Amino acid sequence: MTHLPVLLEEQDLAGALEWLETQPPYAIADEIARMDAVESVITFRLLDKDRALEVFEELDPVDQQQILEGLRDQAFRDLVEHMDPDDRARMLKEAPAKVAQRVLAGLSAHERQMTAALLGYPEGSVGRYMTPETVALQQDLTVGQALEVVRRRGAQAETIYTLPVVDAGRRLTGIVELRELVLSEPRAMVSDLVETAPPMARATDRAEDAARLMRETNVLDLPVVDSEERLVGLLTSDDAFEVIEAADTEDVARQSGAEPLERHYMSVSVFRMSRVRVMWLMLLMVAATLTVSVTQMFEDELNEVTQLALFVPLLIGTGGNSGAQAATAAVRALAVGEVRTSDLLRVIWRECRTGLLLGCMLAVVGLFVGALFVGWDIASVVAVTLVVICAWASTVGGTMPLLAKKLRIDPAVVSAPMVTTLVDATGLVIYFTTAKIVLGV
Amino acid sequence: MTHLPVLLEEQDLAGALEWLETQPPYAIADEIARMDAVESVITFRLLDKDRALEVFEELDPVDQQQILEGLRDQAFRDLVEHMDPDDRARMLKEAPAKVAQRVLAGLSAHERQMTAALLGYPEGSVGRYMTPETVALQQDLTVGQALEVVRRRGAQAETIYTLPVVDAGRRLTGIVELRELVLSEPRAMVSDLVETAPPMARATDRAEDAARLMRETNVLDLPVVDSEERLVGLLTSDDAFEVIEAADTEDVARQSGAEPLERHYMSVSVFRMSRVRVMWLMLLMVAATLTVSVTQMFEDELNEVTQLALFVPLLIGTGGNSGAQAATAAVRALAVGEVRTSDLLRVIWRECRTGLLLGCMLAVVGLFVGALFVGWDIASVVAVTLVVICAWASTVGGTMPLLAKKLRIDPAVVSAPMVTTLVDATGLVIYFTTAKIVLGV
Repeated sequence: MTHLPVLLEEQDLAGALEWLETQPPYAIADEIARMDAVESVITFRLLDKDRALEVFEELDPVDQQQILEGLRDQAFRDLVEHMDPDDRARMLKEAPAKVAQRVLAGLSAHERQMTAALLGYPEGSVGRYMTPETVALQQDLTVGQALEVVRRRGAQAETIYTLPVVDAGRRLTGIVELRELVLSEPRAMVSDLVETAPPMARATDRAEDAARLMRETNVLDLPVVDSEERLVGLLTSDDAFEVIEAADTEDVARQSGAEPLERHYMSVSVFRMSRVRVMWLMLLMVAATLTVSVTQMFEDELNEVTQLALFVPLLIGTGGNSGAQAATAAVRALAVGEVRTSDLLRVIWRECRTGLLLGCMLAVVGLFVGALFVGWDIASVVAVTLVVICAWASTVGGTMPLLAKKLRIDPAVVSAPMVTTLVDATGLVIYFTTAKIVLGV
Repeated sequence: MTHLPVLLEEQDLAGALEWLETQPPYAIADEIARMDAVESVITFRLLDKDRALEVFEELDPVDQQQILEGLRDQAFRDLVEHMDPDDRARMLKEAPAKVAQRVLAGLSAHERQMTAALLGYPEGSVGRYMTPETVALQQDLTVGQALEVVRRRGAQAETIYTLPVVDAGRRLTGIVELRELVLSEPRAMVSDLVETAPPMARATDRAEDAARLMRETNVLDLPVVDSEERLVGLLTSDDAFEVIEAADTEDVARQSGAEPLERHYMSVSVFRMSRVRVMWLMLLMVAATLTVSVTQMFEDELNEVTQLALFVPLLIGTGGNSGAQAATAAVRALAVGEVRTSDLLRVIWRECRTGLLLGCMLAVVGLFVGALFVGWDIASVVAVTLVVICAWASTVGGTMPLLAKKLRIDPAVVSAPMVTTLVDATGLVIYFTTAKIVLGV
């Protein structure tokens, strides 16, 4: 059980200091992320200098920014100077102009230059997430010489486990792992250990694609090059992990018809939380007026057989669920690379059969439920509708994410609610039309 | 564009061989995962021995097993002997008894022992994913001596970047990174470089928790100990990544009311695809019969004001969407550790206000939509219902995942469809009751 917020509320500073001393940096960062602006700055100021830096590195960009705004110049400069260039660039991206200026002004020339370079890459690109601080090797070194280079320049680099190998023009020719160097004879040649044509990325590529490539190829770090194949940095696995986690969080939020929160769930305001949700909710409600029109179209049939109204929520609910399952499966399969847009026809065929099979199973149950409440005639309408609605919803749900991707829209915006709303209106048409045919109303 | 399936279909072996030679192992594995059993074995047999092993390592357990079933004894033994012990254990877990026996019989005594040890840990535990092949150091070595140990024993180990430090009883006392060793003077003492009390896990802990801890603490590898704090292995980042990816895929599937597919989306059969979806679909449909009962309860009101039926899909749809947003946000926040079960009351308060705010915004639009179709009296019923339904749905949606976790159920089973179905029935009660009060029917 955590006590920090309680200790702060009771103004028990000695207790708070003791708590902070016994906790690891990530746990402190976790508490700070849950606090409001004032509490988080107070907590942060209680940390001694070294711990402060460690905790600061664990925080998300928004929280880092909040803390910087509350610090005096010297402490501010110390923190900012010690951040990794890629973390700094990402924080600056989201900071208000005032804070950004203060950050850049506080930096040494070398650090400022690196940060400016990273900020030159487009948002969401590999360039924003890579570390420019690498130890690059020349191919004609011996292992012993290479290890000497690593020893001399390694302290500056974010990682020394993956060592890019470059030619005289700084063009990437391969990579060598520190593991290989350490396990080889000092007189062996680096050129014999180089992995040529390793997986790599352009700095302007989408960071998510590069991170997924790292997952597929199981590499620790991915070399990043510019448009002329010159080495500009390394994408490390922890940054790749962060990219994928953020992309998954975004997918998950969009799948439920919302945008991702910009910050920690527990510290975001109710107003901001509503803002990320209201747009889709509003759009979908307006789209749902289609169901009002459809029901109005069939008002005569509904007045004649009022019991038809009983099954409307069940039928459109089931159709929506079936469509949501298919859409979610397709979005995830696209995200992890199992499905490509060229698979469109195969996915349609697959989901259509799956939907038919599911619809038939549900129809058996639906028939008896219907018979229980009303009678065999309406029950048979319900059963037939279930088969058609499931096949239709699965097909639409499975297909739309692929179509979205073809149109270069994020497939995840084809959310479960969107498919549900779409299927609701068509489901009503299917239901009432089946009723007209079967019952002859 | 890939040509392999086309080449195989046309029986163009020379073309297929050329394609296989030019592609990296992960791309070949990707193609194999999309194939049926016969095609995948044919493709695999076309690979030369070294490439075959590389490709094999990239495959998922189910696909590995499929290929093993199609191989003759010698090739079989070679492949299995070279797998990492943790990959082998995971494949065996899913293999039929016949294959599992053949695998164990084909192993050398040393490998068999390691695999058996991993299989002794419960499913989904850290023990199933860790590598037992580590290079452990003693604290009293110099850096030079430590590097000598790494050189001698490193070739066997899955990673040498994180070196666990143990005492005479093999109890873990800390870790030292290879980076530190390489960058230090050979005469420095390992004891001065050790990070004591590093993040660690028990072999019986849930693998997902350990992997999330690695994310939070940004460590490359996590030392794993037994119940007596003795070192038993390391959880490497690529395995942690795999664990989190699988957990996220499971969450995503469950959120849409389905179980995760056991294998690649494009190669799983329609029958299996239906099986992972039918259970929830069926349960939810049966639960949805509640909406039939509720509508029946209010049949008199519905007969009196038939226009009320027009707005049923729109209202329960919007309520469902709002609940789904809240549930999805809560499930994700729980998964990444932003929300804890002890936050229950704060989450209720947060989601209730968010829902009210959203409901008020939607009510304004709903009022005009309603007036457009019917008239101000029913429109005002629609507006009031929207406010109440959104507040209620958000609260239920945000709370249920936390309650599930308290009851030790996977929060992700509180799927969007489940919340939707729940909110459908209560939404109808809210709607018809509001109508009774406002319209006085």
